[in-house]
Amino acid sequence: MADHTHSTKHLDSIFYPQSIAVLGTTNVSGTVPHDIFENLLIGGYTGILYPVSPGSKSIQCVKAFKYVLDIEDPVEMAVIVFPSHVCNLALEQCGQKGIHAAIIISAGFKETGPKGLAREQQLQDIARKYNITLIGPNCLGVINTDPEVMLNASFARKMPEAGNIAFLSQSGALCTAVLDYAQSKHIGFSKFVSFGNKADVTEIDLLYYLKDDPKTQVILLYLEEITDGTGLMRAAEEVIAETGKPILLLKSGRTQEGASAAASHTGSMAGSDEICDAAMKQCGIIRCSTIEEMFNFAIAMAYQPLPQGNRVAIITNAGGPGVLATDAAVMNRLQVARFTDETTQKLKEYLPKTANIKNPVDVIGDARRDRYQVAISSTLQDPNVDGALVILTPQSMTDIEAIASEVCNHAAESDKPLLTSFMGEADVAKGIDILLRHKIPHYILPETMCSAFACAYRFKRSREREPDTPVNPNGTDSGKAQAVLDRARAAGRRMLSARESEELAQAYGIPIVESRLAQSEAEAARAAEAAGFPVVMKIASEDIVHKVNLQGVVLNIRTAAEAAEAYGRIMQHVQREMPEARVEGVMIQRMITGAQEVILGIKRDPSFGAVVMFGYGGIYVEVFHDVIFRVAPLGKRTIQSMIQEIKAYPILAGIRGQKAGDIAALEDCLARLSRLAVDCPQIQEMDINPLFVLEPGKGCCACDIKVMV
Amino acid sequence: MADHTHSTKHLDSIFYPQSIAVLGTTNVSGTVPHDIFENLLIGGYTGILYPVSPGSKSIQCVKAFKYVLDIEDPVEMAVIVFPSHVCNLALEQCGQKGIHAAIIISAGFKETGPKGLAREQQLQDIARKYNITLIGPNCLGVINTDPEVMLNASFARKMPEAGNIAFLSQSGALCTAVLDYAQSKHIGFSKFVSFGNKADVTEIDLLYYLKDDPKTQVILLYLEEITDGTGLMRAAEEVIAETGKPILLLKSGRTQEGASAAASHTGSMAGSDEICDAAMKQCGIIRCSTIEEMFNFAIAMAYQPLPQGNRVAIITNAGGPGVLATDAAVMNRLQVARFTDETTQKLKEYLPKTANIKNPVDVIGDARRDRYQVAISSTLQDPNVDGALVILTPQSMTDIEAIASEVCNHAAESDKPLLTSFMGEADVAKGIDILLRHKIPHYILPETMCSAFACAYRFKRSREREPDTPVNPNGTDSGKAQAVLDRARAAGRRMLSARESEELAQAYGIPIVESRLAQSEAEAARAAEAAGFPVVMKIASEDIVHKVNLQGVVLNIRTAAEAAEAYGRIMQHVQREMPEARVEGVMIQRMITGAQEVILGIKRDPSFGAVVMFGYGGIYVEVFHDVIFRVAPLGKRTIQSMIQEIKAYPILAGIRGQKAGDIAALEDCLARLSRLAVDCPQIQEMDINPLFVLEPGKGCCACDIKVMV
Repeated sequence: MADHTHSTKHLDSIFYPQSIAVLGTTNVSGTVPHDIFENLLIGGYTGILYPVSPGSKSIQCVKAFKYVLDIEDPVEMAVIVFPSHVCNLALEQCGQKGIHAAIIISAGFKETGPKGLAREQQLQDIARKYNITLIGPNCLGVINTDPEVMLNASFARKMPEAGNIAFLSQSGALCTAVLDYAQSKHIGFSKFVSFGNKADVTEIDLLYYLKDDPKTQVILLYLEEITDGTGLMRAAEEVIAETGKPILLLKSGRTQEGASAAASHTGSMAGSDEICDAAMKQCGIIRCSTIEEMFNFAIAMAYQPLPQGNRVAIITNAGGPGVLATDAAVMNRLQVARFTDETTQKLKEYLPKTANIKNPVDVIGDARRDRYQVAISSTLQDPNVDGALVILTPQSMTDIEAIASEVCNHAAESDKPLLTSFMGEADVAKGIDILLRHKIPHYILPETMCSAFACAYRFKRSREREPDTPVNPNGTDSGKAQAVLDRARAAGRRMLSARESEELAQAYGIPIVESRLAQSEAEAARAAEAAGFPVVMKIASEDIVHKVNLQGVVLNIRTAAEAAEAYGRIMQHVQREMPEARVEGVMIQRMITGAQEVILGIKRDPSFGAVVMFGYGGIYVEVFHDVIFRVAPLGKRTIQSMIQEIKAYPILAGIRGQKAGDIAALEDCLARLSRLAVDCPQIQEMDINPLFVLEPGKGCCACDIKVMV
Repeated sequence: MADHTHSTKHLDSIFYPQSIAVLGTTNVSGTVPHDIFENLLIGGYTGILYPVSPGSKSIQCVKAFKYVLDIEDPVEMAVIVFPSHVCNLALEQCGQKGIHAAIIISAGFKETGPKGLAREQQLQDIARKYNITLIGPNCLGVINTDPEVMLNASFARKMPEAGNIAFLSQSGALCTAVLDYAQSKHIGFSKFVSFGNKADVTEIDLLYYLKDDPKTQVILLYLEEITDGTGLMRAAEEVIAETGKPILLLKSGRTQEGASAAASHTGSMAGSDEICDAAMKQCGIIRCSTIEEMFNFAIAMAYQPLPQGNRVAIITNAGGPGVLATDAAVMNRLQVARFTDETTQKLKEYLPKTANIKNPVDVIGDARRDRYQVAISSTLQDPNVDGALVILTPQSMTDIEAIASEVCNHAAESDKPLLTSFMGEADVAKGIDILLRHKIPHYILPETMCSAFACAYRFKRSREREPDTPVNPNGTDSGKAQAVLDRARAAGRRMLSARESEELAQAYGIPIVESRLAQSEAEAARAAEAAGFPVVMKIASEDIVHKVNLQGVVLNIRTAAEAAEAYGRIMQHVQREMPEARVEGVMIQRMITGAQEVILGIKRDPSFGAVVMFGYGGIYVEVFHDVIFRVAPLGKRTIQSMIQEIKAYPILAGIRGQKAGDIAALEDCLARLSRLAVDCPQIQEMDINPLFVLEPGKGCCACDIKVMV
């Protein structure tokens, strides 16, 4: 993967080249090498085209060159469609020619196995040598609808309409379906990029480029793998913070089977989908579950202003769909607006008696343009309304096209968003066409209309948040932590001892229940007294994982004599049942009662790096999967959201007369763990299970800590 | 609501009338009274039409009658489109004429308020008096595409294609959208009924009618309220058991806001959506979340054989969509089939080297008809494959229509289901049209294709289940239970005392933790001794709901002296804190330790009657909403599914060395509670919280029982 010195990339030469050489094109129509030249030629490209085809004098009546080096004029960008084994030579010659931007369409690289991977690495070497910015290989190409350039450097069947949505895709084939889908819905694109194997330019480079692209307002991303998760998050955060452009992601390979199917066709490896989900939420990327959902959401934000609030007016000419929309609005956490008296009065005045003037407003089946006009204008003007959702069913008296035009007028005049659902298909087709041509978001189902509105509202809210700067707790001693970790590594151990784990936690100020090792009955009695009664005693042995099963744990020991006796009993039992186990002795800790138990952890994800985990109690994590992940470092708001998003949060906060936990102290522990995860990348996995959360003001303490390096 | 003596309904006269009088039609085009006559006239109706219009000599060149009684020939069915205030008179005259079937299109009844409701009740009276089977009022009408009759007795804009899907809708306006949607997708209907306010004929009558309709294979239902839930369940169970016809339901009013919107436009009242969900699952009705989902599922079952298993072959010409489909298949609990060696060999032989011959089969972007042919035929013939999912993206070399025809041929020859997703829109439109005309289910998204296949598979599995006959446990004494309930009613009490609640449980053989009332310190000591130590003591007072907060509960009392002391302390504290509370004394129970706690309950639902509730522990029900409902009476399989479907089931079953609960005893308790709920309809609500579930073989016992009558 290329390092992200984004400013040095020649992406302008990819998107706005003044001249292009197409290497490997032919006159055999119906082939990719032919189609790609034709698309450039007839697509209205405003620069100069040079076909390079060793075997032809001309391509589609344009004079051809045998080699790119034969072209006398300067060339800004190359499109390479040679068979894969010739691509390296072609790129080398581009380099010699002084070309700094290339798109390699050809397949036959990383995705085909070790040989292809070697070929791809050679490509990368050549690109680096000549400072060539490279898109592909194994891609559909690049489209830029900007009239300044009108570039269709792809073998897509068609040039899309111009628009303010950018689409970036790892899969080439999906692009053809997307272009077809978009065309019929009049969805326009600013840039359309199939980036394939991303040998050089990645989705991250493209995000930074699109950040500064004035033609792009919404960015759509299809990925099958996330190689550099933290880079992606950082780029997304920058794009959203600086420009407010929403980024929507469709990420496949959610299931193991899907991930392995993805690996077999792109040679990619997928990380944990759950962590990916959490990371996207954290950095503000909107993750969608289908292509259709992605476009449903995108047009709401690309076509209309973002809603300032979540109070919607629903306008319909049919009761049933009004009910469906109401259900969907509420389930999407929108509010069905309460109109002001003025609005109610206006509706009462103009609508027939049988109409429902409450929200959802039912203008009744025989409504024509005029009733929609009144309902839309009066509700959109209502200060209690943040947007309008307009539903139409094709009844015999419905003047569908007139109503569509009416809707367009209102949307143009209002600074509140207006979304529509003209239900049906054939009868409403002309009306829908009017809406889409005027960039009014339209949805076949009222339900999807509601979820699109809700998505736009959520994005608007998240965009307004202050940046969540990583917390930096006092009293963390990274030197001490490193020393502990180094010691384990020097000894060749992957798992830290209980003592070392405690030291590591203490180095970062995570309070622990101190444990004392006893190696005789007398020591046990003394250690128990020092810890303070009641105490817990546990066998200390790396070889014994399920301590409870082996009767290696004794609770609620109340005197020194009991402690001595328990020591003997534990050692005896273990020697009988598991004589081969290496036993260090018995650990003695003060027994914590009346506390709530949570789990804290660190995981190292191949895409996202340090990840912090939080869950409520062992059984909850296991049975209810009540666990939350976030990519470190964590900010204060992120920490709070982790705690509040677990399902068991009401228990932590104290329900029905039960005691609350010390949430402030818990937040502090998460902050320290996050710091530790970032400072010590050697830690592969860490588990604090349980962390006792005491009453407010009394803090937390970690009990059983496991660390893998 | 009419009683369901279904055989006496004249629904044949509604759907297959030999003659029809249209009462209230006019020549004013663009009005409902005009359109409805025109639809009948030009729709190809095979019987004789009689317009009845007091003011016109003829309607659209057909001789008109002033009154229905003026028609000399016999008339089988009436369609009434008069204004609402004239409908009663018109129906009365129909009765006098000897007509036994009528459709009242007109609105202005129950849905408009008390006056309209009175008018609707008059309609019902007249219908009963003359034994008229009535559809409506407030509906779009009835369509029957059977060539024998070709009936379009509706004001829908169009006559749908004939097909094997029946559509029943409470909302008229939604029908117009559905007809429009269906037309463009070549979805055909057998019967299409908008039944409006269901003054007489309900969805239940229609289900029974469609059960015996040879033209109908799949039944779709849109409801805004379920009036007679148990009747609906019974009808559905009969339809599915006897004919195997799937029933799909879209039920709006899921949220409170949606329900109240529904109420305002149909005058209906919605019950609990959660109970409705459970009931539908129980009786085999497939509940859908949108109209689109309903049709997506319906065509899979109406067009193709049901899958015999869940192992699918995915065939695609593009990797990305193949990954998306794989994800979706797995998330829908389908299996990505493992091909036999023979199939693998065939694929290897015919497909190019770069193709992926594992499942998902990627025939590669330049695939034409021949590669699809090989991939489809060899996988469909594979004994490890239960169905095929065929994906196409429109690439420049794809011969879309030829591939569509190929798909149709294979589907016709195979007894395994084949579903398709030709992605895009304009380019693939002709291909999709070929598929739909040949009744090959098609989906824009691979994801919805997968969920439709999964729905068909689930239905096939549920249809194969043995009927789940209600369990009838021994040793239930309904006489004794009635006596307890009668006593409370006689005393005018809505809430049973703790003692009475226990008696009620005991009458049905539900084991309880016996409790003893003590009214002095001495009695407390004696009662504690009789119960067996340790005991729990609780203040006994109907006025004190939160006993714990008032220090009215003391646990773990180990001696008679402690019991006496605790009695004094409890009484003293309550007298100080809540002197106005009427206190009966203190309840003393043996304290149960080491048991798991679950909640059992009875609720009375306005639509579904007796409902049994089951959940795991108070905090789980409250925080995780881990609770399951089922409509009583329960069968053994239903009881087992309730227990297994709670999220905390693994805890009950015993995880990680923790003890399991006595699940057999828990099943028995649920069976007894179900019997009690059915036998004693006076019980409005009952809660056993907790029911202690002891170790296997040791049974359960109910502790705190609350009963409302």
